[in-house]
Amino acid sequence: MSGYSPLIRELIDALQCLPGVGPKSAQRMALFLLEKNRQGGKAIANSLLKTLERIGNCAYCRTLTEDKICSICQNPHRDQTFLCIVETPADMLAIEKTCSFKGKYFVLLGRLSPLDGIGPDDLGLEQLQQVLINSQVNEVILATNWTVEGEATAQYLTDWIKTKFNNIIVTRIAHGVPIGGELEYVDGGTLAQAINRRSRTED
Amino acid sequence: MSGYSPLIRELIDALQCLPGVGPKSAQRMALFLLEKNRQGGKAIANSLLKTLERIGNCAYCRTLTEDKICSICQNPHRDQTFLCIVETPADMLAIEKTCSFKGKYFVLLGRLSPLDGIGPDDLGLEQLQQVLINSQVNEVILATNWTVEGEATAQYLTDWIKTKFNNIIVTRIAHGVPIGGELEYVDGGTLAQAINRRSRTED
Repeated sequence: MSGYSPLIRELIDALQCLPGVGPKSAQRMALFLLEKNRQGGKAIANSLLKTLERIGNCAYCRTLTEDKICSICQNPHRDQTFLCIVETPADMLAIEKTCSFKGKYFVLLGRLSPLDGIGPDDLGLEQLQQVLINSQVNEVILATNWTVEGEATAQYLTDWIKTKFNNIIVTRIAHGVPIGGELEYVDGGTLAQAINRRSRTED
Repeated sequence: MSGYSPLIRELIDALQCLPGVGPKSAQRMALFLLEKNRQGGKAIANSLLKTLERIGNCAYCRTLTEDKICSICQNPHRDQTFLCIVETPADMLAIEKTCSFKGKYFVLLGRLSPLDGIGPDDLGLEQLQQVLINSQVNEVILATNWTVEGEATAQYLTDWIKTKFNNIIVTRIAHGVPIGGELEYVDGGTLAQAINRRSRTED
């Protein structure tokens, strides 16, 4: 990289911490900002600094927000009896976009992953306990991902909630063939699950 | 996007000015930095601000540098008789990496593109004229891209240099089948060029 000055190299290195950005894309981004869009580069830098300083976690559901309590937790029209547990703020948004859930959320900010050193203490279970004690939750919907870690997390949470709150129903989101999924191309595990969890057709 | 707070939305918008980054990747980047790598985010912001403030163009060759004159132009061991003209600093770096050129460079910072309103005045030709007057350049190698605009730029520069400096040789980098290029899969234009510009095999 003898052609680039130290400062540009530093910027290229810094940009590589972004997900999905390797040396080539980082170089392209750095040169693009320097050559063609310095205004945009400044906007990114300022927005990053401001956001990193002000964004924290919601005191109730742990999602990312600049307020003490996020807009969903503040909303009095959300159904207090349903609590949906997700791994990340992005998962929460994905469900919000479907407009099919009107309850509240709790964000684990991770999943059980012993290999990465992430145990139950890192998932905010004490805070979850407070939420469950202080609210009128009837049903907890586990919407962790359908991965090995996500399943393990769901299993752990099921046991944990049932031990502590035996009046709360714990459910898991359905697994099966997705919309537009042609059986021929759906993977075997999903298909097996879809058959095992089949439901009676309505008359 | 009702789930995200205004500050996060602002960051997602700002990140979309990066090349190759759409709403989905921008969201992924923003959440990754906020959830998992705030240190990295700060490094990007600070490096961006510093770089945008300090990086300018080399007074001789116009490449991006924080010095008044870039390290290649400062280097007394570079061959002063060859000048390679490229479109961008990235192109200059690509040639530098091959270690096959020991002369100096001139960076156009663009190419002729009437549709985008980029004419000869935007390519630093006055500065190029000064470079050619004040140095001992014997040969100018045109290494603009092999695209419609790059070819037009090369043609324009050929005429421009020949009119003003009739003692300078103007050459164009070779076009043909690339290394590992199987004829079956090389496009027709390249193949036609490779046949037209064939050279005699050595004995």
